[in-house]
Amino acid sequence: MAAVTGARFGYLGPAGTFTEAAVRQVPAAADAELTPYDSVPAALEAVRRGECDAAMVPMENSLEGAVTVTLDELASGEPLMITREVLLPVTFALLVRPGTGFDDVKTVASHPHGYAQVRRWLAATLPDAHWTAAASNADAARQVQAGVFDAAVAGAFAAETYRLTVLVDGVHDINGAVTRFVLVSRPTTPPPATGADKTSLVAAIADDHPGALLEVLEEFAVRGVNLSRIESRPTGSGLGRYHFSIDCEGHIMEERVGEALMGLRRICGSVRFLGSYPSADGVPPFVRSGMSDIEFRDAASWLAIIRTNGAPENHI
Amino acid sequence: MAAVTGARFGYLGPAGTFTEAAVRQVPAAADAELTPYDSVPAALEAVRRGECDAAMVPMENSLEGAVTVTLDELASGEPLMITREVLLPVTFALLVRPGTGFDDVKTVASHPHGYAQVRRWLAATLPDAHWTAAASNADAARQVQAGVFDAAVAGAFAAETYRLTVLVDGVHDINGAVTRFVLVSRPTTPPPATGADKTSLVAAIADDHPGALLEVLEEFAVRGVNLSRIESRPTGSGLGRYHFSIDCEGHIMEERVGEALMGLRRICGSVRFLGSYPSADGVPPFVRSGMSDIEFRDAASWLAIIRTNGAPENHI
Amino acid sequence: MAAVTGARFGYLGPAGTFTEAAVRQVPAAADAELTPYDSVPAALEAVRRGECDAAMVPMENSLEGAVTVTLDELASGEPLMITREVLLPVTFALLVRPGTGFDDVKTVASHPHGYAQVRRWLAATLPDAHWTAAASNADAARQVQAGVFDAAVAGAFAAETYRLTVLVDGVHDINGAVTRFVLVSRPTTPPPATGADKTSLVAAIADDHPGALLEVLEEFAVRGVNLSRIESRPTGSGLGRYHFSIDCEGHIMEERVGEALMGLRRICGSVRFLGSYPSADGVPPFVRSGMSDIEFRDAASWLAIIRTNGAPENHI
Amino acid sequence: MAAVTGARFGYLGPAGTFTEAAVRQVPAAADAELTPYDSVPAALEAVRRGECDAAMVPMENSLEGAVTVTLDELASGEPLMITREVLLPVTFALLVRPGTGFDDVKTVASHPHGYAQVRRWLAATLPDAHWTAAASNADAARQVQAGVFDAAVAGAFAAETYRLTVLVDGVHDINGAVTRFVLVSRPTTPPPATGADKTSLVAAIADDHPGALLEVLEEFAVRGVNLSRIESRPTGSGLGRYHFSIDCEGHIMEERVGEALMGLRRICGSVRFLGSYPSADGVPPFVRSGMSDIEFRDAASWLAIIRTNGAPENHI
Repeated sequence: MAAVTGARFGYLGPAGTFTEAAVRQVPAAADAELTPYDSVPAALEAVRRGECDAAMVPMENSLEGAVTVTLDELASGEPLMITREVLLPVTFALLVRPGTGFDDVKTVASHPHGYAQVRRWLAATLPDAHWTAAASNADAARQVQAGVFDAAVAGAFAAETYRLTVLVDGVHDINGAVTRFVLVSRPTTPPPATGADKTSLVAAIADDHPGALLEVLEEFAVRGVNLSRIESRPTGSGLGRYHFSIDCEGHIMEERVGEALMGLRRICGSVRFLGSYPSADGVPPFVRSGMSDIEFRDAASWLAIIRTNGAPENHI
Repeated sequence: MAAVTGARFGYLGPAGTFTEAAVRQVPAAADAELTPYDSVPAALEAVRRGECDAAMVPMENSLEGAVTVTLDELASGEPLMITREVLLPVTFALLVRPGTGFDDVKTVASHPHGYAQVRRWLAATLPDAHWTAAASNADAARQVQAGVFDAAVAGAFAAETYRLTVLVDGVHDINGAVTRFVLVSRPTTPPPATGADKTSLVAAIADDHPGALLEVLEEFAVRGVNLSRIESRPTGSGLGRYHFSIDCEGHIMEERVGEALMGLRRICGSVRFLGSYPSADGVPPFVRSGMSDIEFRDAASWLAIIRTNGAPENHI
Repeated sequence: MAAVTGARFGYLGPAGTFTEAAVRQVPAAADAELTPYDSVPAALEAVRRGECDAAMVPMENSLEGAVTVTLDELASGEPLMITREVLLPVTFALLVRPGTGFDDVKTVASHPHGYAQVRRWLAATLPDAHWTAAASNADAARQVQAGVFDAAVAGAFAAETYRLTVLVDGVHDINGAVTRFVLVSRPTTPPPATGADKTSLVAAIADDHPGALLEVLEEFAVRGVNLSRIESRPTGSGLGRYHFSIDCEGHIMEERVGEALMGLRRICGSVRFLGSYPSADGVPPFVRSGMSDIEFRDAASWLAIIRTNGAPENHI
Repeated sequence: MAAVTGARFGYLGPAGTFTEAAVRQVPAAADAELTPYDSVPAALEAVRRGECDAAMVPMENSLEGAVTVTLDELASGEPLMITREVLLPVTFALLVRPGTGFDDVKTVASHPHGYAQVRRWLAATLPDAHWTAAASNADAARQVQAGVFDAAVAGAFAAETYRLTVLVDGVHDINGAVTRFVLVSRPTTPPPATGADKTSLVAAIADDHPGALLEVLEEFAVRGVNLSRIESRPTGSGLGRYHFSIDCEGHIMEERVGEALMGLRRICGSVRFLGSYPSADGVPPFVRSGMSDIEFRDAASWLAIIRTNGAPENHI
């Protein structure tokens, strides 16, 4: 996706959420028009319609797991493509109206995901406060500003947007929690391979049978392609009927990844490519012996010669 | 779990949700004290503390997938055990205060899961109505009763509890949607095998490595045990670190299931048994040649004789 | 190999063996000069040196298994290529000098392979006759002619060559025994695929390790290529060090076979192609769903488009 | 097999072969009566009939591969059991009658296996000598003694038996060649596990189908049992119909081996145990994590408790 001046980026809003923080990490966002959307489907629909060039949405969280609405939206409808991933450490602040002290906090609001990550801290610190679900942490902050609740659990960066004060920062139950966001555009030529890339895709089994998942995994394993994430998601047509949302190591331009994808394409009812993009951690995958591009190309040359001559060139 | 008079059953409340409808399908519930809990963790904690003999909670939905809070609560803390599953078709009603007509509905509330299942119907039928998330469908109904919203998307059975009227019944975007609930008690001897059973478990990989999931699946496959559900769930210790929540066909007392579980126990960092219980659909699993209990026992006898005599009995 | 007038065919001699019968089944042999060789290595060396255009040698026998000298000669030295296979039922005659009766037979000679196939018949019919090994059945016949032995076990067609009489015909211990012969030439473009072909090859593991054979088999299995024969043969560098001599179903020009061969090439220390040629039984292999040439080509087109556009053509 | 005084050992004769050298390595052979037999079947039949307590026969050779007659005799008929293996380096001598010099050697005899191992040496050293096959190397020596041939290729130890002279010793084409012999008795309790053992068996596929061999290998692989040898042997009922002769690492009393054998027993038409015995090299196999006897027993205890209590003991 070209980072031209005047690019338009959507993101899962409202303003002041971690997703806005994520989109601001994209260099091209500096000059871009940023538009918050109410929901992941709304943000992705805006990309499909051409209202935005790309949208940042959350994909998974090291504590809560997949953001299923994102997986499901990417898996159906007009094709979309991930061009970048962003990892953000998850840490919350307790935001209050200026002047509110600890003893004044009787009610706390946050998105349930945020709550899940500070539950123990809240129980220990504010045992008598009552928690209520909000549509997002930013919405919780907005409601605190509006006087509905006494405190919101949200990113500290939301304080400014809603004119709140950070009563406590660095709140989380588990150290090292990370949320992974993805930048989604309409399909286009994937960004070039960097040597440390990921490929995302959705594979649906045509004919559900025992061992179908094993067969899917073997298509990757036999080509030495490691998976970094696999989720089963219901197809909507009955319990026990799934498609698989998969991230694998490597880039679609790499031979082992390309051959694995062709293998999936042949055995699955459908395969949807969701993008090849640089790994946020920049760590090149381990590629086992026999699975490098050079070895794939050597084998292809060898086969071409054998098919013509019946033996390798040096024997003719 | 003994179905004695005076049994105490918890469930994910409030009253009037599908979960209450599920718990009422358990014969022992007829004479039992039924207690709604605010959240899945609260219901399961009540079982752990002995406040309830068992609790009914939602496990997965054919449209939305796993109920992750249930998976995560069963996977950690003091062990719990599933003793029964209940499948309920998902169909919603639009509930309003008596006297409210279609044209009066400007605001609609429901749990986001309920919304996901009627989104298209709402967009087509009430394109101008504004939807707001509620903590549960029943809570949406309660807020309609309180005058906060004009209409709630909930099970028709909630109308009575909240003195509402069913404006439309049978609302859903996709036919055949089903929610699966499980009845959870403290660990005890699993109910006897019926020939059409499921076994649930959680397997955590000790040493995360490419191919770990493939190895887990092969432990089942080589013993002819089919999986009906597998979910990866984050362990909380970083992206890419998962445990697997698994339902397989068969009962822990069956030899092929027992041997597969021992295999998992040896290669996984930990395996948590979550129960063997009758399949709600009553369909016996396909057991391929060589994998019946009789064949396992024949092989065990054969081995015992060979180990003693060096050859089968009839040759000595 | 072109069947031109004046073609020169070698075969494992002497004249009058089953191998001569096999070479005479090749249409081009009608006009060819046929030369018997003392041993399989001698016959194949004659092809390598250009003394013969092709040579017929035995490859395996349904009773005795692989003809290991043939496997080993094909696996090393200058490359050779199988262009045809011939199956011959194995049935023997008891040949004697004219005038010899049953009661006169005190000594019987044959190649040990021939003996293995008539051992029980000889024990029942001529319990007192003493058997001696000969270099070939034909050589046994020659020695009977020379008066060294009383009878030879050989093909009935050998009687004429050595001026012997067929005392009993149709001798064999097991019905349906078959020997498979192969016609071997110098490497050239393999004959075109017929739809019912076999491919022969030798794969040597670079780095011997547990599971190496499993990996070799998986390269075939994941592409739906069935094996009709696999033999482990020592490499000569120590017990437990093998290469594998393999026949698989299908032709090297077929995509699934080509991709499996490239997979082997990458994971094995060396792969030697030994030819693709029509199956003698003419039965097309079962090709499972996803593994036909059409499906391979469809997947390749799909990948090419995805790599360029990020999505299938109809979505651009 | 008890090593009592008066034990009777058979071996593949005649006297003066490597097999006699192998049987003499068994401590109990010192006091035993040693009987040469004409053929492997004859030696093994003598064990079956009780004429011998045990017999030493060749099993495989690092140059020539399996001794197929041994494999086939062990695979059928009354069960037999291997109780010991012996490895002997293969090195030959050129034996002549006293007084014969290099220039006098016009004819050389040996068993074809011996010839295969000195072929290049002979071609370089005695390019004009004519080689003839003998039934065994010892028989070649006997014929040299009788004046039929000028020289025999045989073990140096045969010189004394046949009153010949060693013209050259240490003759072989490839260094490090080894022959493996096995001591075979009637079935009895296998010798105790030493920690460095092998188990031999024959597995026949009931219903021949693509992937059958893969399934056999997976029964071993999933329990971490490595194979040190696998041979396909025809069943005699048609080309492409095989049983598999297998050596695996470990002892039948070890849990991983026992479970793998039970797995084979269930999926194969028949499994014949051929013995567990100490590895001649004394090297303990690598046992991967999860596959030790302790881990098998821990998993079995865990399963037993789960089946009774629904959870591990420490949670009850």
